[in-house]
Amino acid sequence: MSTPITVPVVLGARSYEILIGPGLLPEAGARIAALAPQARLAIVTDENVAALHLATLTASLDKAGLAHQTIVVKPGEASKSYATFAEVCDGLLATRVERGDFVIAFGGGVIGDLAGFAAAVIRRGMRFIQIPTSLLAQVDSSVGGKTGINSRHGKNLVGAFHQPSLVLADTSVLDTLSKREFRAGYAEVAKYGLINDAPFFLWLERNWRDVMAGGKAREEAIAVSCRSKAGIVARDETETGERALLNLGHTFGHALEALTGYNSKRLVHGEGVSIGMVLAHEFSARLGLCSQEMPSRVAGHLAEAGLPTRIDQVPGGVGTAAELMNAITQDKKVKRGKLTFILTRGLGESFIANDVDPAAVTGFLEEKLADAQKVGA
Amino acid sequence: MSTPITVPVVLGARSYEILIGPGLLPEAGARIAALAPQARLAIVTDENVAALHLATLTASLDKAGLAHQTIVVKPGEASKSYATFAEVCDGLLATRVERGDFVIAFGGGVIGDLAGFAAAVIRRGMRFIQIPTSLLAQVDSSVGGKTGINSRHGKNLVGAFHQPSLVLADTSVLDTLSKREFRAGYAEVAKYGLINDAPFFLWLERNWRDVMAGGKAREEAIAVSCRSKAGIVARDETETGERALLNLGHTFGHALEALTGYNSKRLVHGEGVSIGMVLAHEFSARLGLCSQEMPSRVAGHLAEAGLPTRIDQVPGGVGTAAELMNAITQDKKVKRGKLTFILTRGLGESFIANDVDPAAVTGFLEEKLADAQKVGA
Repeated sequence: MSTPITVPVVLGARSYEILIGPGLLPEAGARIAALAPQARLAIVTDENVAALHLATLTASLDKAGLAHQTIVVKPGEASKSYATFAEVCDGLLATRVERGDFVIAFGGGVIGDLAGFAAAVIRRGMRFIQIPTSLLAQVDSSVGGKTGINSRHGKNLVGAFHQPSLVLADTSVLDTLSKREFRAGYAEVAKYGLINDAPFFLWLERNWRDVMAGGKAREEAIAVSCRSKAGIVARDETETGERALLNLGHTFGHALEALTGYNSKRLVHGEGVSIGMVLAHEFSARLGLCSQEMPSRVAGHLAEAGLPTRIDQVPGGVGTAAELMNAITQDKKVKRGKLTFILTRGLGESFIANDVDPAAVTGFLEEKLADAQKVGA
Repeated sequence: MSTPITVPVVLGARSYEILIGPGLLPEAGARIAALAPQARLAIVTDENVAALHLATLTASLDKAGLAHQTIVVKPGEASKSYATFAEVCDGLLATRVERGDFVIAFGGGVIGDLAGFAAAVIRRGMRFIQIPTSLLAQVDSSVGGKTGINSRHGKNLVGAFHQPSLVLADTSVLDTLSKREFRAGYAEVAKYGLINDAPFFLWLERNWRDVMAGGKAREEAIAVSCRSKAGIVARDETETGERALLNLGHTFGHALEALTGYNSKRLVHGEGVSIGMVLAHEFSARLGLCSQEMPSRVAGHLAEAGLPTRIDQVPGGVGTAAELMNAITQDKKVKRGKLTFILTRGLGESFIANDVDPAAVTGFLEEKLADAQKVGA
């Protein structure tokens, strides 16, 4: 077997390992059998991932003598719905998996969130394994146990904290991603630099082309991201404090996703986060929290890596400041009328601001939208 | 305020109290305000409970200055569906309750399970309060944190362990129950005697008429039941062992409910449990585990209290032994092909049998169904 990078997530009885490296998918059967030799497996995946990688996974499980069944859903954010959740739950129950068995979430962030949530509630909680196939899922959504689906009121508003038993991040699988998908995940990689790790951001500024190209730099970037997230999650599993830092760029980003109808042709999650992180830095600068140069440095790097950084880059527009504010206040980071945003005092100096004045955000958004119209004109 | 019986449920940071007594509903506002003076409340109830008791609850909340909104669903087991779950989740999100606010589950077992599950997953977990209005909910489903909905594969197969912050069991509310509903709850009361408390069963044999009539005997029966359940839950919150004893009569009972299509006109949960407990004792006697007289003593008391005790009492019949077995093996208490049943060695001497031979159960059911046909002929 290969010798992957191992990142432990230390959560007492719920501790687990993230394994990172090329060629892990063909080893999945042996690694899962080592964890639970008798377990039966129910794989949840989407049509795209199934077409590309399911045969490799099932061959590996067969070789290890592990019984498995597969549930395939449609790709895309629209599958994080009540309807698909019910379909996956009923599908899992039809496989007759029992409490000691495993659900395998095999796909990107949508599959991880959806299958993880189903695993959290089937028979009031089954074990599950994350095999993330997108960069975004490998560095973010597969780690830390947040699972859930979307409501018409917003993203991830219905879900559970449910930790996986193992995360297998096969970096060679990422070669099959489109450039756009890879870049979207890269936004979350850059996020870890911007949260609290300036040296990592500087490293990315120098090495982002190698990260895109694959090989050791990519593995290193994924490992740094996972270690950063694992540390935060170990200190604050259920987001009573520090974990909220991981939402940098997400409050603006979720609002943009909501106003584009979660239509991945217009905007995918990582793109919303990219624009959202730039907005968070611009808003911080506007409040005098960080230097006026910070936003353009952040935007410069994200744009160089091929990511959108301005609202006017969203095809079809995103509505008015009032509509954005409505989406923001329905997002989950709200307390007693004051808004919570992740703001920054400088490169890698993000912090949780619990008392942001909604009027200040509205004013800022009105200005940004006016700018966007000028650009669009 | 009144001085109710207080039963603590000791679960570390998730500990809470069950208050039992007459007149608690008009005090709900004051008691909830004492717990969380600033909280906003989202009440989930059904049409029947709303018509009878909602005005009392909301007047009490108003008096305590607590903001509240109400979501009303249709009464009956059919509301423990994916569709109603989605409706309640979206309804709760529309009220904009936040993580520190409370969901109030105001109704019988269906409402407690449904609203409790929604509270478990809204924003990945909100606090909630149980105000059970049926005897069954007061002695069983409102205590211990099991929440969930049904799948076409079986009851409660999708759900969460989510403990309430407070249980208010107003015993005077039970005066509005039909005799049939009250008796159905009484099956769960008798269950606590049969599990591990022979003196309580003997007490019920002598005092069941007073329990039905109301007053001190009723409060006492509810308190003994809640204490018994609270003790078991404190020792085994997530049912890795002892808690399974609470399923006495439920494996057979759930199968009967499934085969009557969860149609409450034909069979309600407590009636299924009543027949199921008698079957569990008959099966135990057949296996030579308890005396041949035990089943008729148990059946005698339940029948005296007005409960059904035989399969042939289910209107419209329940199908074949093979169909019952299919429903049983889909129930959640299955491990590696062997069946788990709660069996008994005598009065109040129930135990968990993990290795029951499916063929023995099939044979037993075939015999019972043949008996039922004789009775029916």
